[in-house]
Amino acid sequence: MKSFAYLGPEGTFTEAALNRVPEAQGADQVPLGSVITALNQVRTGEVDAAVVPMENSVEGGVTATLDAIASGDALHIIREVLVPISFMLVGRPDGPRELSELHSVATHTHAWAQVRIWAEANIPNAAYVQAASTAAGAHGLLDEATSYDAAVCAPHLAKKLGLPILAEGIEDTEGAVTRFVVVARAGSLPEPTGSDKTSLVVPLPEDRPGALVQIMNQFSTRGVNLSRIESRPTGEYLGKYFFSIDLEGHLADERVSAALAALYRMFPGVRFLGSYPRAEGVPYVIPEYTTDEAYQRGRAWVRSILDR
Amino acid sequence: MKSFAYLGPEGTFTEAALNRVPEAQGADQVPLGSVITALNQVRTGEVDAAVVPMENSVEGGVTATLDAIASGDALHIIREVLVPISFMLVGRPDGPRELSELHSVATHTHAWAQVRIWAEANIPNAAYVQAASTAAGAHGLLDEATSYDAAVCAPHLAKKLGLPILAEGIEDTEGAVTRFVVVARAGSLPEPTGSDKTSLVVPLPEDRPGALVQIMNQFSTRGVNLSRIESRPTGEYLGKYFFSIDLEGHLADERVSAALAALYRMFPGVRFLGSYPRAEGVPYVIPEYTTDEAYQRGRAWVRSILDR
Amino acid sequence: MKSFAYLGPEGTFTEAALNRVPEAQGADQVPLGSVITALNQVRTGEVDAAVVPMENSVEGGVTATLDAIASGDALHIIREVLVPISFMLVGRPDGPRELSELHSVATHTHAWAQVRIWAEANIPNAAYVQAASTAAGAHGLLDEATSYDAAVCAPHLAKKLGLPILAEGIEDTEGAVTRFVVVARAGSLPEPTGSDKTSLVVPLPEDRPGALVQIMNQFSTRGVNLSRIESRPTGEYLGKYFFSIDLEGHLADERVSAALAALYRMFPGVRFLGSYPRAEGVPYVIPEYTTDEAYQRGRAWVRSILDR
Amino acid sequence: MKSFAYLGPEGTFTEAALNRVPEAQGADQVPLGSVITALNQVRTGEVDAAVVPMENSVEGGVTATLDAIASGDALHIIREVLVPISFMLVGRPDGPRELSELHSVATHTHAWAQVRIWAEANIPNAAYVQAASTAAGAHGLLDEATSYDAAVCAPHLAKKLGLPILAEGIEDTEGAVTRFVVVARAGSLPEPTGSDKTSLVVPLPEDRPGALVQIMNQFSTRGVNLSRIESRPTGEYLGKYFFSIDLEGHLADERVSAALAALYRMFPGVRFLGSYPRAEGVPYVIPEYTTDEAYQRGRAWVRSILDR
Repeated sequence: MKSFAYLGPEGTFTEAALNRVPEAQGADQVPLGSVITALNQVRTGEVDAAVVPMENSVEGGVTATLDAIASGDALHIIREVLVPISFMLVGRPDGPRELSELHSVATHTHAWAQVRIWAEANIPNAAYVQAASTAAGAHGLLDEATSYDAAVCAPHLAKKLGLPILAEGIEDTEGAVTRFVVVARAGSLPEPTGSDKTSLVVPLPEDRPGALVQIMNQFSTRGVNLSRIESRPTGEYLGKYFFSIDLEGHLADERVSAALAALYRMFPGVRFLGSYPRAEGVPYVIPEYTTDEAYQRGRAWVRSILDR
Repeated sequence: MKSFAYLGPEGTFTEAALNRVPEAQGADQVPLGSVITALNQVRTGEVDAAVVPMENSVEGGVTATLDAIASGDALHIIREVLVPISFMLVGRPDGPRELSELHSVATHTHAWAQVRIWAEANIPNAAYVQAASTAAGAHGLLDEATSYDAAVCAPHLAKKLGLPILAEGIEDTEGAVTRFVVVARAGSLPEPTGSDKTSLVVPLPEDRPGALVQIMNQFSTRGVNLSRIESRPTGEYLGKYFFSIDLEGHLADERVSAALAALYRMFPGVRFLGSYPRAEGVPYVIPEYTTDEAYQRGRAWVRSILDR
Repeated sequence: MKSFAYLGPEGTFTEAALNRVPEAQGADQVPLGSVITALNQVRTGEVDAAVVPMENSVEGGVTATLDAIASGDALHIIREVLVPISFMLVGRPDGPRELSELHSVATHTHAWAQVRIWAEANIPNAAYVQAASTAAGAHGLLDEATSYDAAVCAPHLAKKLGLPILAEGIEDTEGAVTRFVVVARAGSLPEPTGSDKTSLVVPLPEDRPGALVQIMNQFSTRGVNLSRIESRPTGEYLGKYFFSIDLEGHLADERVSAALAALYRMFPGVRFLGSYPRAEGVPYVIPEYTTDEAYQRGRAWVRSILDR
Repeated sequence: MKSFAYLGPEGTFTEAALNRVPEAQGADQVPLGSVITALNQVRTGEVDAAVVPMENSVEGGVTATLDAIASGDALHIIREVLVPISFMLVGRPDGPRELSELHSVATHTHAWAQVRIWAEANIPNAAYVQAASTAAGAHGLLDEATSYDAAVCAPHLAKKLGLPILAEGIEDTEGAVTRFVVVARAGSLPEPTGSDKTSLVVPLPEDRPGALVQIMNQFSTRGVNLSRIESRPTGEYLGKYFFSIDLEGHLADERVSAALAALYRMFPGVRFLGSYPRAEGVPYVIPEYTTDEAYQRGRAWVRSILDR
């Protein structure tokens, strides 16, 4: 794999996620302006893979990711990456170094929301300047055309740009983590590891009350736990929905393949978005009666009666 | 197949059921005193099959059938037979012919319960004499040792014994039907016909609240409809239960085999009691997404991803 | 309460159940020939209550009870009684005392089924004579018109009749117990004790696949556990069903009344058959979120928002 | 009500939503830099209400809304507003008017994603310039410090700023609609209209597999349909989740209050976020057995037995 697109610009948390992908080291790294552009470049073959935010994000883009991956040519998630969210306050190379001297601070609105308590306590008089991304705000400090004194950005960007660090660890919630995914063209399915995640999208072809419960039951009766579920409007008009689902397990696991085959029977538009190793260290527990071995036992028993 | 046991004595409704089994015509027919004796003779090979009541009955014996078939060596139901329930009032060859002259009437308590309204209206002064079966009551009319004037019995027995018919069609509920089953040793599975029934028993190994809902869900998520369900104490002590279940479909149907394999994974003591043609003429409808063809489509889809 | 009917004749296990009902001591005790007769005498006021078998039985009558209580004027179960099932072999006052000398043994077919293993081991050559009840078989030993040597009956009858006891504890399954219920006219609801049972009947007005799962879910979402469930044909014709259900709890318990109100909304033909103390000593555990106190908390929370 | 905050700056689609709120006409309108700031001003009383995006959005901010409303002092949604999404391409007052002359176009990344197909067909050579919002991009055209030729923005802003319109209706998906909500301090519950929506948040206190199915069942057994569901990490660390749910109905509807009371019993951290009229014109259908009248019937039936 040679080239990786990511939701740029350079210095965002998405780049931090990219830095945690072993295969991306030494590869061509392409910052792009939107999630949809990044995914489309994977689709067209311009890049081999893309790193985009999946769940919660400093820079936004999550619903964009869900929507973009749910339509268009099929893509597969091949890896997920967790990035701890920590912020630094950086200043102009030649600007003020004292917090009390700051007049204005630039950053993405989502990042600002995550340092608000710190900001109210420490820089109550600094005005907020909206930036297109945390990285754009930080880069602006090197640009004569901007006039703000400081920016809130990711630690790795602060170091990369060599900007003076005015404060660090300023995030209001300690231990926050954002989830990113590496997306490739459909076709390459990572091997099961025993602690995997599978993502899928289930479009609901018509207005069908109770469809969600039906979907849930197909999973719960097979002991498949869901780690994320979202209903999303399809974009055509509100009221038509699809479900975006992450579940615990790999398509190669019997209980997962049985559940997905059942979904496919009921909702033929279901889209498989990949099975890949879970980034969370904590292993999951499945009911004993849903192991592959149990599935084989069950089939063997039926077989033994039919073949008698 | 040469010999059929049935819940006797001769002349009961169970014999009427036996008369409706094509393979039993010309075969050896063995009336036995209890359901358990009949089933045990199948188990030991003394007879090839037995006809016993399964659901509702004039002579009782239903719970006995459920319990007897649920334990001991495995047996398979290979056919079900519906018998319309109609009663005649028959008298002594040399006894009174007028209803108003009758002093006492013998029959099985269950049969008596089913003609009570007629009896109260037409023979209000006749005393009820308990008999061990409808047939025993009727046979007794030919016996000097008994003293009652009349008996309530099945039409075919009345004719067979040549007893004077005092009234016919005296059942209080018109159109009642009783279900009997033909039971053979495990091993012979009738071919699927498209309108089949499958019987099974699910013992609950420990006190497990919610087990019933779990079982129900395994069926409902696969579009398998249940036509009968009963929880029965295992006999050891009250509180330990098994479920006796009839469902619509044949073990060779994908949705049924998937549901049964799932049950087996959860409750390894599940016992398969046979798949056989349904006697009810009305065909059942299954959801389109649970046909064999849908199952094959679902598997093929999963396969296409795994094999890519 | 002055008069109690029971499924007779005297000496059956049902009479043994009656003997365990405190209110019945010193009361008028009326043996009747069938469950339906006993229940109808309660309906007409001829007796104040009736004792009938409910679940498993030596004498049969269980399905008869379920059916008879499900139709006709409303009745309420006010108590349940458990009777240990044990059998004695009794002989003629002037008959043989050695097992090896016995030529024939009379009893009800269900009772015979429960002593078969013992009989095969100890009196292999004795012929079986069908009797209308265990009591009828035993009483017959005092009657010159019968010719069998022995009978299988309940211990309390053996003692009452003063018959010679040839063997005792001959039941094949140790510790078996049969459940009887005391039935009165609708209207008297015993107080909740904290360990109660509620019985009901849910007729399904039309052919409604999935109705059973709907019913189950109304209970399981409210933490109500079922201790017995049976689907029964209504008697009109096979295929129309009602469900006979016992659940853990009293109608005065919030979770039970909510579940029953929900059933009533869906199936207005539901029939309440009584809430009464459970005979099993073992208390049941309900989820913390389904206690009366939890229900009150939930309502208070909603109230606090609506009243704001 | 006098003052409304909204996710600014002026000219965004959120302002377009504000313009559709009758009570906001003539009121003080306060554009704010982030959803969290807007909601916090409601909490502190600086404004009376805030308009923020809820589901799908051109400017992002949706997950921010879900997260911000789920924590902190209680807020209530009192209205929802649908805004059709349509884009115009506007130019500099003194800039080029021909599409072929455009060198660069600025807008928010989400808006860019929604006009990409049009852009590739009509302005394939124009570079994309990331802006903090669609409004910021358009306002920049009036600013000497920026150098791009055009911007993609909402129609109402194009008209307000009097910028030259280079193209209109350039959105790739026709008929797209975005949903906004009006949020006020807890306490004011709009009257039920018969076509309402209720929003809530259910935090899962511990890792509880199966919790989602439990929640779903509480709704489905009461005939309450969900129109949106999302699982969201709580922010503390991934793996702790809350569910954000919209359902059809008003808290004053019996089936809704029963379902919410049940949720409260199971998950006492549940947060009610308001019941308010649905913006979608299409009325919803509820099962007959879940109307208020059905609930009253059910309760009356139980009452009639308990009071007997």
